[in-house]
Amino acid sequence: MSKYNVVVVGAGILGLCSAYHIKRQNPDEKILIIDKFGSAGQGNTAKSEACFRNVFSSKTNFALANSTVDFYLHVHRELKHDLGLHLIGYLFLFSEDDYKRNKDVLEEMQRRGVELEYFERGDLERMIPGAVLEFDEKDEEAKMMNLESVEKGVLGKKCGYLEVEKLVNFYEEEFKRVGGEIRYNTVVQSLIIEPVKKFGVPGEPFVWQDSRITGVKTNRGEIRADTVVVATGAWTNALLDPIGVDSHIKPKKRQIFAVKGPSLEPLFNAKGFNDENILPFTILPKAGIYFRPDIGEGSCWVGCGDELGRAFKFEEEPQPEENYYFQDIYQVLRKYFPHFEGLKPQSSWAGLYAINTIDANPYVFREAGMIVVTGASGSGILKADAIGRVAAGVYMEEKYVEFFDGEKFRVSDLGVENRHVEKERFVL
Amino acid sequence: MSKYNVVVVGAGILGLCSAYHIKRQNPDEKILIIDKFGSAGQGNTAKSEACFRNVFSSKTNFALANSTVDFYLHVHRELKHDLGLHLIGYLFLFSEDDYKRNKDVLEEMQRRGVELEYFERGDLERMIPGAVLEFDEKDEEAKMMNLESVEKGVLGKKCGYLEVEKLVNFYEEEFKRVGGEIRYNTVVQSLIIEPVKKFGVPGEPFVWQDSRITGVKTNRGEIRADTVVVATGAWTNALLDPIGVDSHIKPKKRQIFAVKGPSLEPLFNAKGFNDENILPFTILPKAGIYFRPDIGEGSCWVGCGDELGRAFKFEEEPQPEENYYFQDIYQVLRKYFPHFEGLKPQSSWAGLYAINTIDANPYVFREAGMIVVTGASGSGILKADAIGRVAAGVYMEEKYVEFFDGEKFRVSDLGVENRHVEKERFVL
Repeated sequence: MSKYNVVVVGAGILGLCSAYHIKRQNPDEKILIIDKFGSAGQGNTAKSEACFRNVFSSKTNFALANSTVDFYLHVHRELKHDLGLHLIGYLFLFSEDDYKRNKDVLEEMQRRGVELEYFERGDLERMIPGAVLEFDEKDEEAKMMNLESVEKGVLGKKCGYLEVEKLVNFYEEEFKRVGGEIRYNTVVQSLIIEPVKKFGVPGEPFVWQDSRITGVKTNRGEIRADTVVVATGAWTNALLDPIGVDSHIKPKKRQIFAVKGPSLEPLFNAKGFNDENILPFTILPKAGIYFRPDIGEGSCWVGCGDELGRAFKFEEEPQPEENYYFQDIYQVLRKYFPHFEGLKPQSSWAGLYAINTIDANPYVFREAGMIVVTGASGSGILKADAIGRVAAGVYMEEKYVEFFDGEKFRVSDLGVENRHVEKERFVL
Repeated sequence: MSKYNVVVVGAGILGLCSAYHIKRQNPDEKILIIDKFGSAGQGNTAKSEACFRNVFSSKTNFALANSTVDFYLHVHRELKHDLGLHLIGYLFLFSEDDYKRNKDVLEEMQRRGVELEYFERGDLERMIPGAVLEFDEKDEEAKMMNLESVEKGVLGKKCGYLEVEKLVNFYEEEFKRVGGEIRYNTVVQSLIIEPVKKFGVPGEPFVWQDSRITGVKTNRGEIRADTVVVATGAWTNALLDPIGVDSHIKPKKRQIFAVKGPSLEPLFNAKGFNDENILPFTILPKAGIYFRPDIGEGSCWVGCGDELGRAFKFEEEPQPEENYYFQDIYQVLRKYFPHFEGLKPQSSWAGLYAINTIDANPYVFREAGMIVVTGASGSGILKADAIGRVAAGVYMEEKYVEFFDGEKFRVSDLGVENRHVEKERFVL
C-alpha cells in the first residue's frame, strides 16, 4: 500500500485545480487525485452552464473570478490552448425597482474594476430584434404573472462561456505533466479518521485522543495520505457529516434545457454587445431565469436559479423536469423573448450546486489534517484557478497566495475560523 | 377548517417561549402550538442537561442568556413558581495552556458583567476532596492519554441547573392563561407553500409566482395560518430542506449518563463554590467532558461535547452508547475524579443538538412568511425567554425588543440578512 503526500478526492474542476497548484509548488511530493467516474470532470462540473464572469459584489468573489478569468483568457489566447472560450458578456436585464436596488452595488463594482456597460430599454429593443422589454397595459398575462418591464440592461464585459471539457482537459494534462497521478473508477466510501498516537485498541479513536484524517476508504481498498483534500462538490456532506465536520454547503438541483429552432436566429445576430455579434448570457428580471446562446450547437441553454420551493436535497442522478421547463421557465421566457414560442428543449440535464447560503463565497479550510474545498455555489468553474491556489496556500500553510493577475490574497479569508468575506449580492 | 394568525410548530422550550411572547403581545390573535408528542417539552428539550449560564464570549449570547437567567430567577424566587432551580455555578477547569488561551476572553466577559471567581489548583484540591488536578510525572496513563494538569478553575456564578419539566410547565400554563391553544399528538408532515395570487392550476406555485408558507400538513389534516413559526430544533431540516430554505443548523447527538454511588459523596459536599455546598457543573480540561450533580437524584449527570468524529446525523430516536461512556468519557473522568472509579451509569439517554457551526448563536429569521427559530446548539433552554421575545419582535416587525432585564436588543442581529453576532468561543 503506497502512501501519498496528498490525496485529492474529486476530479471535478476544483479538485483538479487544487491538485495542480499543490503539485506545481511541491514537485517532489506524491499527489494523487481519485474520482469515481471514468474520467475527469464527469460529475457536476460537466452539468454546468460553463459561464464565467467577474461581476460579483463580494470583493473576495471578484478577486477569485477576475484572476481566474484572466488566466483562462491567457491560456486560450497566449498559450493557444483552445478552451472554446467566447467572451460574449453577461446581460443583466433590470426592472426599474431592481435597478434602483442594485445601482449602488453596480457603481461600487465599477470603481473596483468590473467593466460594465449600460443600455436603455430603447437600445436593447434595437439590439435584440423581437425582444419584448415593455409590457402593454392590456397584456393580461404579463399582469397576472407580475412581469415587469425592463428598465435597463447592464452588460458585464469580462464575461462569457467556455467548453468545460476543454478546461478540464487542460488542467488534467498540466497536472499529469508536472507528475501528478490520477486514479479513476475509484469510489471513496469514507474518510479514515485515526488517533495520532495509536494504541491498537478496538474502538479507536476515543474522544480523549487527538485524531486526524489519514486517508480514504475506497471500493478498491484504502489509500493513505498525509493530507486528504476533499473537493467533492455536492457530495461533500456524504463524506464530512459522518465525521462531524460541517461543510457549510447544501446541494440543490439546477437544470439546463437546450432549446433550438429557426425562430432563435435573431438572438444569434444581436449586434453591439460583443465581437461575436451574439446575444450575451442573459439574466431576465424575473424568477432567476437565464439563458445563453451556444455558438457550436446553435442552441440556447436555458436555466433558472430558483430558491424558495426548490429543495435542498442530495441525489446521485438528478434529472431535469420537463414540466419545470414548460410551466415555470418557458412561461416567463416567451414573454420577454417570443423567439422561444413553441420550441421544445432538444436536450436537457441536471446537476447539483453546492450552495453556501451564508455568504455565497467559497470555503477552503483545514480541519483535522484534511483540507476542504467547496461552496462555490455554481461558480466553481469560473473561480477554480484562484481557489486552487488558495487550496495550495492552505496546504503549504502560507498566509497569502498570489493569483494569476498578481493579486495578493489572504488564505484565511476563505476559511472557517477567521473567515472574512462580504455576502455576495449577485447570486445566479 | 379554522385559520390561525400564528401556528407554532414544536412545543419544545423555544416553541413555547416564542408562542407565549407572541400571544402575550397580541392577546386578540389566535395562536396555536402543535407538537407530535403527547405533551410539551418531550423532544430534545427533555433530553437536556438543563443547565444555565451567562458565561458566553459572544455579546449576543450573553445578552440572551443573562436576561433569560434573570427571568428564571425572578419566576423561581419572586413569583414563587418552583423551577427546581439550583444556582450551583459552572466550574471551568483550565490547563495552563487553555487558561492562557482564554484569559483575555474571560477578562472581557467580566468587564461586560459576567460574574467570575478564580481558583488556584491548591484551592480546588482543598475544596474538592479526592479530585486529582495534577498528574504525577510517573502517571503513565495520564501521559498516554495526554491529560493535562489543572492550572486554574474559573467559576461562573450566575449559572446552575433547573428542572426542565417545571420550566416547560410554567410556559405552557402561561401560554394557556393568556388564551393560547395547544394541539398534541399532531405530526407536521410538511409546510404548505402556496402562491400569493392563486390560479388554481395544478403544479402551483410556479417559479414566477410570489409564494409563501400558508400552513402545515399534519397527520390530522391541514392547518392554515398567516404565519407559521418553525421551532423544531433538530427536526428543522426535515421541514425546511424540502422547500429549499437553509436552517443553518445540523443535528448532532449528545448523551447523558447518570451515575450514582457512595464514592461520589464528596462531590455533594464541596464547600466554597455555592450556597448549596455542592460541586458546580464542572467542565474538564480534556475532550469536552462535563458533569453536574443532580441534587434530587443524588447522581451525577455526565456528558461530552464531542466534535470531530461525532456525526452530523438526524435520528428519530437517538440512543446512548454504553461503550462511549466506558471507553471515552469514563477514562478521562476517573483520572481527574477517581470518585467515579468502578461506577456504572444507572440510566442514560440521548438527544440531538441543533448545532450552528458558523457562529454558535441562535437564528431567528423570517422567510417566505414563515419565522424560523433555531440554532441554539444545546443552549436553548438557557436563552429561551429572550429568544421568544426576539421571535415576537420578528413577528411584529419591530426593530428592537426589550429583554426581561431591560436590555434593548436589535432583532435583525439574529437574522440571516443582517446578522450581527460574534462567534462564540465558549461552546459546550
